[in-house]
Amino acid sequence: MADVTAALFFAEMRFDPKDPHNPDSDRFVLSKGHAAPILYAAWAEAGAFDRSELLELRTIGSDLEGHPTPRLPFVDVATGSLGQGICAAIGTALNARRIKSSYRTYVLLGDGESAEGSVWEAADVATMDGLDNLCGITDVNGLGQSRATMWQHDMEQFARRWRAFGWHAIVIDGHDMSAILDALDEARRTKGQPTMILARTIKGKGVSFVEGKGGWHGKAFKKGEELDRALAELEKQFVPVPEGGSNLASRIPKPASTLRAVATPRPVAPPAYKMGDEVATREAYGAAIAKLGEADPRVVALDADVKNSTFSDKFEQAFPDRFYQNFIAEQVMVGAAMGLAARGAIPFPSTFACFLSRAADFIRMAAISNVNIKLAGSHAGVSIGEDGPSQMALEDLAMCRTAPNYTVLYPCDAVSTERLVALMAYHPGPAYMRTSRPKTPVIYANDEAFTIGGLKVLRESAKDVATVIGAGVTVFEALEAYGQLKASGVAIRVIDLYSVAPVDAAGLVAAGRATGGRLITVEDHYAAGGIGDAVAEAVAAAGLTVQRLAVREIARSGRPDELLDRYGISAKHIVEAVRALEARG
Amino acid sequence: MADVTAALFFAEMRFDPKDPHNPDSDRFVLSKGHAAPILYAAWAEAGAFDRSELLELRTIGSDLEGHPTPRLPFVDVATGSLGQGICAAIGTALNARRIKSSYRTYVLLGDGESAEGSVWEAADVATMDGLDNLCGITDVNGLGQSRATMWQHDMEQFARRWRAFGWHAIVIDGHDMSAILDALDEARRTKGQPTMILARTIKGKGVSFVEGKGGWHGKAFKKGEELDRALAELEKQFVPVPEGGSNLASRIPKPASTLRAVATPRPVAPPAYKMGDEVATREAYGAAIAKLGEADPRVVALDADVKNSTFSDKFEQAFPDRFYQNFIAEQVMVGAAMGLAARGAIPFPSTFACFLSRAADFIRMAAISNVNIKLAGSHAGVSIGEDGPSQMALEDLAMCRTAPNYTVLYPCDAVSTERLVALMAYHPGPAYMRTSRPKTPVIYANDEAFTIGGLKVLRESAKDVATVIGAGVTVFEALEAYGQLKASGVAIRVIDLYSVAPVDAAGLVAAGRATGGRLITVEDHYAAGGIGDAVAEAVAAAGLTVQRLAVREIARSGRPDELLDRYGISAKHIVEAVRALEARG
Repeated sequence: MADVTAALFFAEMRFDPKDPHNPDSDRFVLSKGHAAPILYAAWAEAGAFDRSELLELRTIGSDLEGHPTPRLPFVDVATGSLGQGICAAIGTALNARRIKSSYRTYVLLGDGESAEGSVWEAADVATMDGLDNLCGITDVNGLGQSRATMWQHDMEQFARRWRAFGWHAIVIDGHDMSAILDALDEARRTKGQPTMILARTIKGKGVSFVEGKGGWHGKAFKKGEELDRALAELEKQFVPVPEGGSNLASRIPKPASTLRAVATPRPVAPPAYKMGDEVATREAYGAAIAKLGEADPRVVALDADVKNSTFSDKFEQAFPDRFYQNFIAEQVMVGAAMGLAARGAIPFPSTFACFLSRAADFIRMAAISNVNIKLAGSHAGVSIGEDGPSQMALEDLAMCRTAPNYTVLYPCDAVSTERLVALMAYHPGPAYMRTSRPKTPVIYANDEAFTIGGLKVLRESAKDVATVIGAGVTVFEALEAYGQLKASGVAIRVIDLYSVAPVDAAGLVAAGRATGGRLITVEDHYAAGGIGDAVAEAVAAAGLTVQRLAVREIARSGRPDELLDRYGISAKHIVEAVRALEARG
Repeated sequence: MADVTAALFFAEMRFDPKDPHNPDSDRFVLSKGHAAPILYAAWAEAGAFDRSELLELRTIGSDLEGHPTPRLPFVDVATGSLGQGICAAIGTALNARRIKSSYRTYVLLGDGESAEGSVWEAADVATMDGLDNLCGITDVNGLGQSRATMWQHDMEQFARRWRAFGWHAIVIDGHDMSAILDALDEARRTKGQPTMILARTIKGKGVSFVEGKGGWHGKAFKKGEELDRALAELEKQFVPVPEGGSNLASRIPKPASTLRAVATPRPVAPPAYKMGDEVATREAYGAAIAKLGEADPRVVALDADVKNSTFSDKFEQAFPDRFYQNFIAEQVMVGAAMGLAARGAIPFPSTFACFLSRAADFIRMAAISNVNIKLAGSHAGVSIGEDGPSQMALEDLAMCRTAPNYTVLYPCDAVSTERLVALMAYHPGPAYMRTSRPKTPVIYANDEAFTIGGLKVLRESAKDVATVIGAGVTVFEALEAYGQLKASGVAIRVIDLYSVAPVDAAGLVAAGRATGGRLITVEDHYAAGGIGDAVAEAVAAAGLTVQRLAVREIARSGRPDELLDRYGISAKHIVEAVRALEARG
């Protein structure tokens, strides 16, 4: 890869090594993140930092980690899970259009990596969007980690796949500098479609005893004879440095500067719902992002062919240019959002919450990148009803709550949805909003204030015997249980835990202490990893424990009300749990 | 799809409607699971159940759910998350080879579905494996859920993609019965490669006011005029039923019967490690599956090009015919395992634990299918060291523990690994084993007994001031802390929680009660969704709370010992936590 990287960094790309975040700078994404050392070497050579720092590679004090992360200013998104970089590159390429910049995006993939399905999701989307500002380079070295790759050096296998997916494909000898430069030039001149340069390479090129051999993946030379021999062979191939040093850095073309107005978000009007109106939170979500899009041009939305269910079509209708359709391909949807976010957009990718799990590894890497994506998942829980378990998200809270830097929000009505969408947009870092299919009544006034890490006490009295903590649809089950218990003279406290991560530990402890230490969580989610666990950890230090009502078996099709009841999270079960706790004293 | 389905069920497939699990029966996978009604209609027509049951569709008392699940005996794996059925079909096709049966696998996909990357992972693997016993049919109706599909009726787009991926592609008019039957015949006669029949269809064919129109996805006709009109139009097209009924069911070809010996697993020899030997659990895992493979021919292993890191190459060396290489494509690896499991194999798919998250949606659907797959993830946690956060699984326990029917095991030494591999193989349902990169000493005798849902108390005395619960690498941190505390006269109980789901609630409560209610969990995993949460829920009803030591920020590269310490899960932090709890009383 040394030849390709040298060509990119010192002849092709326009960038400023001292200002890698320049908005008009060409982007380079190392999709095969395990090749990090060459990325670091190239940036050091370009002058981004001192070459001596390279010797700190993979040590705990250095940001030159085993795989690249955005701790380094010249890395847009963390790579190291294969097939993700090219999806992020779709995002940075779309972003160039969004900000009307002529910058180009280059993405370097491995041949082994090309087996990942996400690569082909990206291939389709790039073609659909005609991304001629995107240039891929596949390093076809024929060797995977554990064996030869699927197609080894059969370049035609790669060429026909990329061409079938609508890309301009160029096959070259990846060690022929003229061929590399010509291919990059051809890519730049290719209009209306993205280009993939398929570079046939020899792994370990230049060191005779490793060239093209397996068994060397991720291995350093042994110090002593082995290392000395390799260095000697490489040094023999050095081209003499001209007088005064090579000064490669000075040859890097500067980014084209684009004059553009700084976008200043306008204030967003408050929600305008009527108390008691029946509005599904997914529909309120769609309306909220459309409203936010009006106020802030950085807001964009991404879909995976369910816009009429998630109501992201409300955004598309208002801002078709900032709406990115990915068809049924959740990985590239989330990956592209990561690339857009890395370049300053505020992306809202959405689909059914259960299908976000298709992009779980991207969601994991988004945490590592600490990138500013705003995921939204609709149709959470058994309350979707008849469509059955494959369409019910019952593990999405666990998926997003586990990473320590995710904000997780779960509104129960239209007003809180709209307020929380605005909050999540401007709260830095990755965030996830869970919405529901059924219509629920508006219970908050339009001027009600919400905070990330907050909760709402909906019912309370000095005589409360227990606190019931719901979120989303179960807030209404808790309110129903409150009514039934009140009729028989029993008072309970009811909390809407709209912020699942972080949680308001102090508020939960206070409620628990005020209600005899009796805390009951009720959630339309599996018992593990969700609201019960979040509350339990928050109150543990205060010596409080939690009784969890949650879905504890594989669900099935049925009416929403039948399912809430069957899986133990309806008002009836809350009433029973309160009575049982009360009887126990 | 009525035409294609009729051709498959009543002219092409060999099966016994009364015995859908016949091992030599052709398999039909409805990858586009939302078309469930036609699947049910076909099986009813074939005689699997009474037609009157169709009227119970999507009601809580019926197994005819919104999307198919294996609650129905004729469904191998649940579908409804697109792009999964074709991966499972790879598994059923591989299984035919495994059991030396001539049965064929048919899989029906949607055109919208073809945007999912997993479809192309499956395409590559089927070609690599030359699966000529696999026939796909893509229903190209041009309409997605929310809009026209990417390529609409441009059949050439589909044909060139499948051909580029090495399949025999046949384009037909999907409403021309002769063309369908000819294509199925051609597929059957095609050797050495799989076939994809690309059927151009009109959605809503036969009802004039919906034919080829958007906006009807998943919608039923309104009772009254709309329904009556549609029924009248369809009834006009009925072909007269011959005297005595059509008796379609009697025309179904019976499966070819294959004589084969019933495989009887032989006893497995006990582990043969030496106490104190340093062996990584990932290496013990590889040795264990190879040993199990010797005893039971149903055991198979699947890899995603990391066999030399997960040590599944030990299995490959012993049983190359039962080892399935998927290259770097985790979705098809897990999906194929689901198909193999559905047909009686005991599949062990393995990769780095963090990359299993690439298949999170498959892992979710495997829970819904309650299918017998045995996932293994190596390189868990920060203890992998220098490779950095992209390679560290810190959310895998949460991912697998959340579904209520997963068994989750996490051994700390070679003996427990080998014992638990054998246990998980014969424990029905989905299971996950987490293994570690570093070598750890053997601490169990070869005849030590383990159980699913068990734990081991490694250190205990009547004076223990706290219980420290570790698993995997943190068991050794806990033992080290035990030693340090003992030197200063403080005794602690140490538990190896090798079974994370289910957990031994009684054992944990007993330990907690015996040690002043002081329970400390320590895990190489994020704080949410893992061992801390599992223990907290198990002991909550006894009024006990848990203090959790876990990874609470995004990790970075460094030496394993540095990272365990930096992220608060080393012996030093355990000692501090014990002292702090003790001081609090």
